[in-house]
Amino acid sequence: MLGGSAVHFALAASFFDTVHVVGPVGDDFGEAEREVLRARGVVTDDIERVEGGQTFFWRGEYGWDLNDRETLDTQLNVFAEFQPKLSKVSRDADVLFLANIQPDLQREVRQQCARARFVALDSMNLWIESARDSLIEAIGDVDCLLLNDGELRELTREPNLVRAARQIREWGPRVTVAKQGEYGAAMFTDEGFFGLPAFPLETVVDPTGAGDCFAGGFMGYIAAHPDAPLEHGLLCRAMAYGTAIASFNVEEFGTERVARLTSDEIAERVSELQRITHFVEKPVALRD
Amino acid sequence: MLGGSAVHFALAASFFDTVHVVGPVGDDFGEAEREVLRARGVVTDDIERVEGGQTFFWRGEYGWDLNDRETLDTQLNVFAEFQPKLSKVSRDADVLFLANIQPDLQREVRQQCARARFVALDSMNLWIESARDSLIEAIGDVDCLLLNDGELRELTREPNLVRAARQIREWGPRVTVAKQGEYGAAMFTDEGFFGLPAFPLETVVDPTGAGDCFAGGFMGYIAAHPDAPLEHGLLCRAMAYGTAIASFNVEEFGTERVARLTSDEIAERVSELQRITHFVEKPVALRD
Repeated sequence: MLGGSAVHFALAASFFDTVHVVGPVGDDFGEAEREVLRARGVVTDDIERVEGGQTFFWRGEYGWDLNDRETLDTQLNVFAEFQPKLSKVSRDADVLFLANIQPDLQREVRQQCARARFVALDSMNLWIESARDSLIEAIGDVDCLLLNDGELRELTREPNLVRAARQIREWGPRVTVAKQGEYGAAMFTDEGFFGLPAFPLETVVDPTGAGDCFAGGFMGYIAAHPDAPLEHGLLCRAMAYGTAIASFNVEEFGTERVARLTSDEIAERVSELQRITHFVEKPVALRD
Repeated sequence: MLGGSAVHFALAASFFDTVHVVGPVGDDFGEAEREVLRARGVVTDDIERVEGGQTFFWRGEYGWDLNDRETLDTQLNVFAEFQPKLSKVSRDADVLFLANIQPDLQREVRQQCARARFVALDSMNLWIESARDSLIEAIGDVDCLLLNDGELRELTREPNLVRAARQIREWGPRVTVAKQGEYGAAMFTDEGFFGLPAFPLETVVDPTGAGDCFAGGFMGYIAAHPDAPLEHGLLCRAMAYGTAIASFNVEEFGTERVARLTSDEIAERVSELQRITHFVEKPVALRD
């Protein structure tokens, strides 16, 4: 079914700003797939159709409690030969998300978008294990790294998340977000830490793409504030929007739920998220 | 070294109220061990010394990132023959915590404390696997179940935590707290959900006892409010105190850190916890 980082990201971010997707697809990506994006106002001009090619393909299996995921098949397909050539409007992007793909490709795209004021990068264990040096170089040229916490540990070879985030800071990005699946997400900035649980759901049908929807909501919120300084508080709110949209995504398979999501539903879930994570401090007499 | 549910719990709860510990120890539990508790004002009159016996013993190993723990050895020792006989003052307890032990023993203690207005119970996979029926019966007679999230899934045979908590509610307790280690804790009450990340630490030396310290802070906070209704907001604050004290416990081995903890340090960490989990909602224009 339709999926992939760019698709999930674009749908989530489309609630905040106009999204331009860059990437190659094969003959199996037809009008129906393109229409899912267009229906949400996503600009697909930079989606390059490779004649006779097959779109990137991933297949995996989740464990009993959905916290473990095993990759059964990854086919780069048209991505193997992809040479990104961005249109003028994409090159002028204000906010850029380098979705999970071979880090050399991420660097090429990064270089073409010289004006971006905020660039984030996602990756995965495949690239950490097969292209770590290139990945670290790519990370060195972005503002924000978004990774699963396990990948963050693997990449930095540091089991402690606070120290792992400090290592990332030394490599360049001033913001590190550790995605923690069912447990939510944690952010490290120069101004401190922010932790946000996932939205509790009684029915989780398909966790695939939740991280990309999170990224879409997070980056979308930033894109929606072109004149605001990128301070900690704004990034915390961006996390809340990312968390809210990701929580809808997992309620159904593929892109089904987010494709028909409404802005009212998002706003309501962000409010609910605020409510279920907030506690009011009151003084209590402690005994030394 | 000195440890165990009752010890960690008692030290953590001692910041809020007078704690009476009930349980058996062996010859290896001497004056030095007792003094660790007494120094924090914990009443040890109901700690029963079994001549010639050995204290309950646990040994385990943590994985690289401390999220996995393997039990290498569990010796019930004096607990195997223990018949709890509580003193009058312990039987009159206002708040009762049934620390992790064979559920038949937990039920015996529960029955002796008829006046308690709030009773919580902890357990572990050993009892879920060897005494599930008795455990469910014990759970049926308490107000709050505190378990690791993995144990909650195992006990209820339900992978989804929201549904697992609903199952627990049907068995009796109106409050379920899922301890999630590095990821914090989640609470389910009749008034809703509350999620709180763990306090981020750069140095975690020994996670052993963190859950018991959490329980101690949580129950201690409740005990410190004898006249307050046990509503959701109060329980959320109780979670914050539990989280704060647990975070100190893991900074050093055994009981070392909590034994010299101060009330100012706790209050400061609760404030910090409030700061790093709070985001301020601001309206944003979303596109449908």
